[in-house]
Amino acid sequence: MEKRELLYEGKAKQIFATDNSEIVWVEYKDSATAFNGEKKSEIAGKGKLNNQITSLLFSKLAQENIPSHFIEMLSEREQLVKRVSIIPLEVVVRNTAAGSFSKRTGIEEGQPLKKTLIEFYYKDDELGDPLLTEDHIEELELASKEDVAILKEKAQEISIVLTSFFKELDIKLIDFKLEFGKTPNGDILLADEISPDTCRLWDINTNEKLDKDVFRRDLGSLTDAYEKILAKLEGTQHV
Amino acid sequence: MEKRELLYEGKAKQIFATDNSEIVWVEYKDSATAFNGEKKSEIAGKGKLNNQITSLLFSKLAQENIPSHFIEMLSEREQLVKRVSIIPLEVVVRNTAAGSFSKRTGIEEGQPLKKTLIEFYYKDDELGDPLLTEDHIEELELASKEDVAILKEKAQEISIVLTSFFKELDIKLIDFKLEFGKTPNGDILLADEISPDTCRLWDINTNEKLDKDVFRRDLGSLTDAYEKILAKLEGTQHV
Repeated sequence: MEKRELLYEGKAKQIFATDNSEIVWVEYKDSATAFNGEKKSEIAGKGKLNNQITSLLFSKLAQENIPSHFIEMLSEREQLVKRVSIIPLEVVVRNTAAGSFSKRTGIEEGQPLKKTLIEFYYKDDELGDPLLTEDHIEELELASKEDVAILKEKAQEISIVLTSFFKELDIKLIDFKLEFGKTPNGDILLADEISPDTCRLWDINTNEKLDKDVFRRDLGSLTDAYEKILAKLEGTQHV
Repeated sequence: MEKRELLYEGKAKQIFATDNSEIVWVEYKDSATAFNGEKKSEIAGKGKLNNQITSLLFSKLAQENIPSHFIEMLSEREQLVKRVSIIPLEVVVRNTAAGSFSKRTGIEEGQPLKKTLIEFYYKDDELGDPLLTEDHIEELELASKEDVAILKEKAQEISIVLTSFFKELDIKLIDFKLEFGKTPNGDILLADEISPDTCRLWDINTNEKLDKDVFRRDLGSLTDAYEKILAKLEGTQHV
């Protein structure tokens, strides 16, 4: 596989074309951003950790018959994925109240929710990634009603697998953000990344935060936290 | 009917008990507030205008078989209404993009929506009246799924009646906010007020704003705008 021109650069990743039009080459950056880019930093090693964690989690989901765009890890910082057209929605799955959900609803951070709750946010930096209702999504034509139903179903399935997987590692999966893409034949496929940048992960015994809140809230070393997650995930690998 | 103790004081109205436990006495205040109370003013005559406009609109809805808590207007500033327990949701009905909807979605103010869109906001000043999804409403136990369905159905019906009524008066009903209450036997009843404080009303020919945006955006005399609305509504009365 040959790496070609840069197609897209986001806050956390660069996407390159390859000699296969259906496959792109992802390189994870060391940039950390929060609050819609208002807080920024370079954190050496973060990109490598997220690439490895995402690769392990997408492999785990594939074993549980949940496909994603992930093909293979190429190096510590790089992976190959199927090229998809990203649906401009952040699909947020919540099992425990935290972050913006607690601010919005007044439900205290750490309180378990009665049921898994799915929210949609508009992937639009200029608008500040606002919460959308399903009617907003329809009005904006971001996804059809049928597609929204599929996104919700897939998000629920992924939540069940990831929650139980992290639980085995003594980690509580508080909430997480997913992105999905459309393949050339119109199928909806899990895409982007699943990492401590996109999940809230708490130590099940101490409630220690092992995710991007360490950066958002200045709670210590981000890479120490991410390394703990990676070490736990690697411990489950039976090669 | 005898006016008794003050039960509740909101930003725009005072609610008093009466000698009948099922009826309360409403007095409209002259206070104008916007942006969750950050902008405040006393505007002489506003309370009288809103009381009269609300009374006319609730009467019009009653004629169209849409009941509300409204019983009768007592004076320029006062009305009697049925006592209900207010559901803590602002039910916002939108036919044309404007205000916070335009900020959220990037859809330009004035653009007609493909269909009437209903949003729910949490009536909670401390939280800043945030937008809620139906899942949030369920999690917070603010209303049951069945009640939310009733609220949406009623809001759609009211939108049809009010839109066509205002159109006859050469006024475009852009969007409006409703509140509902529960009667002692559990029925859901339209409550609160419907006035230029709670609707966006534009002159159909000139797009002149005849609502609280005149105050929010410093566009001139608020009472002049509200008086135009009242005069048009009174012109439709065939006593």
